Amino acid sequence: MSFKTDAEIAQSSVMRPIGEIASLVGLNAADIEPYGHYKAKIDPAAAFKLPKKQGRLILVTAINPTPAGEGKTTVTIGLADALRHIGKESVIALREPSLGPVFGIKGGAAGGGYSQVLPMEDINLHFTGDFHAISAANNLLAAMLDNHIYQGNALDIDPKRVLWRRVVDMNDRQLRNIIDGMGKPVDGVMRADGFDITVASEVMAVFCLAKDISDLKERLGNILVAYAKDGSAVYARDLKAHGAMAALLKDAVKPNLVQTIAGTPAFVHGGPFANIAHGCNSVIATRLAKHLGDYAVTEAGFGADLGAEKFCDIKCRLAQLQPDAAVVVATVRALKYNGGVARADLGEENLDALAKGLPNLLKHIGNMKNVFGLPVVVAVNRFVSDTDAELNLIQTACAEYGVEVSLAEVWGKGGAGGADLAQKVVNAVETQPNTFQFAYDAADTIPNKIRAIAQKIYGAADVDFSTEALAEIASLEKLGLDKLPVCMAKTQYSLSDNAALLGRPEGFRINVRGITVSNGAGFIVALCGNMMKMPGLPKVPAAEKIDVDGNGVIHGLF
Amino acid sequence: MSFKTDAEIAQSSVMRPIGEIASLVGLNAADIEPYGHYKAKIDPAAAFKLPKKQGRLILVTAINPTPAGEGKTTVTIGLADALRHIGKESVIALREPSLGPVFGIKGGAAGGGYSQVLPMEDINLHFTGDFHAISAANNLLAAMLDNHIYQGNALDIDPKRVLWRRVVDMNDRQLRNIIDGMGKPVDGVMRADGFDITVASEVMAVFCLAKDISDLKERLGNILVAYAKDGSAVYARDLKAHGAMAALLKDAVKPNLVQTIAGTPAFVHGGPFANIAHGCNSVIATRLAKHLGDYAVTEAGFGADLGAEKFCDIKCRLAQLQPDAAVVVATVRALKYNGGVARADLGEENLDALAKGLPNLLKHIGNMKNVFGLPVVVAVNRFVSDTDAELNLIQTACAEYGVEVSLAEVWGKGGAGGADLAQKVVNAVETQPNTFQFAYDAADTIPNKIRAIAQKIYGAADVDFSTEALAEIASLEKLGLDKLPVCMAKTQYSLSDNAALLGRPEGFRINVRGITVSNGAGFIVALCGNMMKMPGLPKVPAAEKIDVDGNGVIHGLF
Repeated sequence: MSFKTDAEIAQSSVMRPIGEIASLVGLNAADIEPYGHYKAKIDPAAAFKLPKKQGRLILVTAINPTPAGEGKTTVTIGLADALRHIGKESVIALREPSLGPVFGIKGGAAGGGYSQVLPMEDINLHFTGDFHAISAANNLLAAMLDNHIYQGNALDIDPKRVLWRRVVDMNDRQLRNIIDGMGKPVDGVMRADGFDITVASEVMAVFCLAKDISDLKERLGNILVAYAKDGSAVYARDLKAHGAMAALLKDAVKPNLVQTIAGTPAFVHGGPFANIAHGCNSVIATRLAKHLGDYAVTEAGFGADLGAEKFCDIKCRLAQLQPDAAVVVATVRALKYNGGVARADLGEENLDALAKGLPNLLKHIGNMKNVFGLPVVVAVNRFVSDTDAELNLIQTACAEYGVEVSLAEVWGKGGAGGADLAQKVVNAVETQPNTFQFAYDAADTIPNKIRAIAQKIYGAADVDFSTEALAEIASLEKLGLDKLPVCMAKTQYSLSDNAALLGRPEGFRINVRGITVSNGAGFIVALCGNMMKMPGLPKVPAAEKIDVDGNGVIHGLF
Repeated sequence: MSFKTDAEIAQSSVMRPIGEIASLVGLNAADIEPYGHYKAKIDPAAAFKLPKKQGRLILVTAINPTPAGEGKTTVTIGLADALRHIGKESVIALREPSLGPVFGIKGGAAGGGYSQVLPMEDINLHFTGDFHAISAANNLLAAMLDNHIYQGNALDIDPKRVLWRRVVDMNDRQLRNIIDGMGKPVDGVMRADGFDITVASEVMAVFCLAKDISDLKERLGNILVAYAKDGSAVYARDLKAHGAMAALLKDAVKPNLVQTIAGTPAFVHGGPFANIAHGCNSVIATRLAKHLGDYAVTEAGFGADLGAEKFCDIKCRLAQLQPDAAVVVATVRALKYNGGVARADLGEENLDALAKGLPNLLKHIGNMKNVFGLPVVVAVNRFVSDTDAELNLIQTACAEYGVEVSLAEVWGKGGAGGADLAQKVVNAVETQPNTFQFAYDAADTIPNKIRAIAQKIYGAADVDFSTEALAEIASLEKLGLDKLPVCMAKTQYSLSDNAALLGRPEGFRINVRGITVSNGAGFIVALCGNMMKMPGLPKVPAAEKIDVDGNGVIHGLF
């Protein structure tokens, strides 16, 4: 049996003009700004004037990711297509891919098989320029801050306590730690500095959490950028940077509309990573998908310990959203990997390993159901090598939680392969109790909030804080900036902060190395283990294989 | 008498849908990719299949710029509108503005008064994302280069002889000189490094000089990025970076179509500065304007000593273009400033100062006419304060060169205010001899080529080379990379390399501090005086006044 590759499927799909996709959700040509023939920006003000649909919000999340692949984005797209297949008006809300992984290890990120969003090449490269706008806004603030110091430093900013870093949308370890402002007196003020990847920028988080452009500007102004020599806080608004930053984001803040292979409307907008940032697409896109669809299907990055927790505790809290159900995606292969099977042997039936890996899935199910109080459906993204015995084992285990399992074949069959999943999701929404709540109270202390996440969600024994983290907590308490939800920066590969602990580790401790505040976004960041906000390229970057031919056709993106 | 501001005029203008503008040059809806309703990218392959028009190429250049303002872009736009006014099918080719000046001193750059290209705000901010794509391609190459060194350095690159720098489209002096790769062993290899502004990137130059996407990729592969420890050259293609870089530029390389207030089609595409780079819009856009118009009106940055010289000696040489006429723009005010009048006193008639400043104009006229062999027309961009005696003085002086002078009132009257100029340009093209030639032979030695530019164009006594420059020349000669035209990086404010020497200085020497090769672009760069490839922000950056309101309307861009 031979399969077409994702790229072959994408490039052989016939897209509909974006105006036709827009009209599916009631938007007419004047409401959309086309970017080429198959992408458009939507003016939210116009779109929110349309009649409101049912707007049920389905969150797709997953077990901890493995090199075996889980296909969370593929299932998200396939579920939305499947909902349309069974007669429900679905709309997708997804994150935009970062150039970092595209040129690094991962290649493209726009779903797979017959569950993809199109045009795949554009979405994976610059798309409509949102990330570039975010980088520019971030770096304008940095340039204005250093210029302020250089031009006399009227705010008395302490160059040793500048918090704001520059960003680039690239995996570039060389820029993690730098000294800048070197050279002659006219070349700035020398200080230790560094770059993060754009998806880790607070501007990205602000962008994704803002209600509208006025809220965006307000939040940008609230960014804490440095401390003055007397210890007082210096905000972006003190540098008069937030107006120009918002001007740079005026178009970016409008959600991007594209289509799936099946023609389902998809908003792809904003894209913080879920390990070093909060991991969800923009609030504006999610609200728009809810407004224009009976079922808004969205995803949160990486496993449910990261993406889904932040989706609930940060995004839903700040945007006053309530999810109607969670879908937890797993694969037999990834569960066996979690149970200790080497990557090369994942094609063999191995019930023992599957049984050892299953508690990872069950922990995430338990979190979504019992901690957050949501109806849950498990989607097993099916591979040809899965055996009936393996699938039965998963179903039996999930039944103990009262959770339905669906075998999704959306990679190979698109929406038709997800009809059972769609129906189970609809049933869960319509029949199961929803007692949605947060994992902690934002008004609690920072250590207590982190402990709540670590113990309830990760299953940790306790949390250790470094001396630096404790000092930073004290500093934020003094400034009154501590009553915000917490964004954990933690490895995606384990429920713990140690990437090597697979399955369902117990008795471990979470190490909080540093604490910062994203005061504009509205959360505290806790840096756990050895997480870095700037990835590096692998020995053979994916970029080496990416090419474009004389007709402008991209090759090697998958 | 009260005037509307540029922004008020722009924002109150009614734009036509971009499809209508495209149809003026024979393009139909399927040939264009809309970016919103008033911008589009044009597929050059489709456009070049249309019937070829007369394609006369008019270069607009100017005297050395002053704080008084010359209005070269305004005259370029106004001339094109005026050519349509007198019945000639004109098409404009202009550079895209950089964010650096927008947020720095200058504010927007899209013409002025009734001679502007629209939508002004978009063109001045991200436009269609070309500069961001260029930055990303530049920085991908940098990340791959440093990653190569970090991952074992199979090419044996000498970290002390890395030539490739990162870029950001921002005035950020703090990044001019940095040490990167600091921190732990996993954080890269420590070395001295630095950032340039995007418009100075060789990727920008490659982008602007490439014939098509295949040529673009070939040129990107030819970029010299470093020397190995044995002194051999390392090119971008050795890092397998050029395919992915070209993929990042696949859309950017398509020219952007917009409109003037009068509805004249304008390609705005590519934008290297003319002081630190070669200063002209893309070759593809210029050729497209020639193909689709009877008159293609283009401009080169800053004064004729920089922009026009590079337009002729680099762009026309590499792209085998031949200009049909040059328009030299001046203002009475700027000439008086060149003659020593303080900025506050420019409104007063001052024939003595004007007589002292005039030789600056006459030198540029002489260069265009006698060195490059082109028909020349002088456009005096008229201000209310200009007196008849002042205007007469200019006309008399120009008459001695056999050059026509036109008083252009395109700021206040649009194309109608430039009808006389347009007619004089047409007459010059149709009746004057054109013996176009270059200022030097590319096969000559680097010092001789630089001397030819310095002596013939600048009027310098001679050229001094630093020890470093001489060593770099020897190194390029050894590698056989010296037979290329030369791009002078020199202050725009003076014919000399000293910004304070106004008017028409004589007896001065040009100091060449450094020599580099842009082997992909196809030129040598000579760094003169204290030119820097990364500007800084002023004490009060223009960004502090830029804002966006709740309806997404930009304020403070002018």
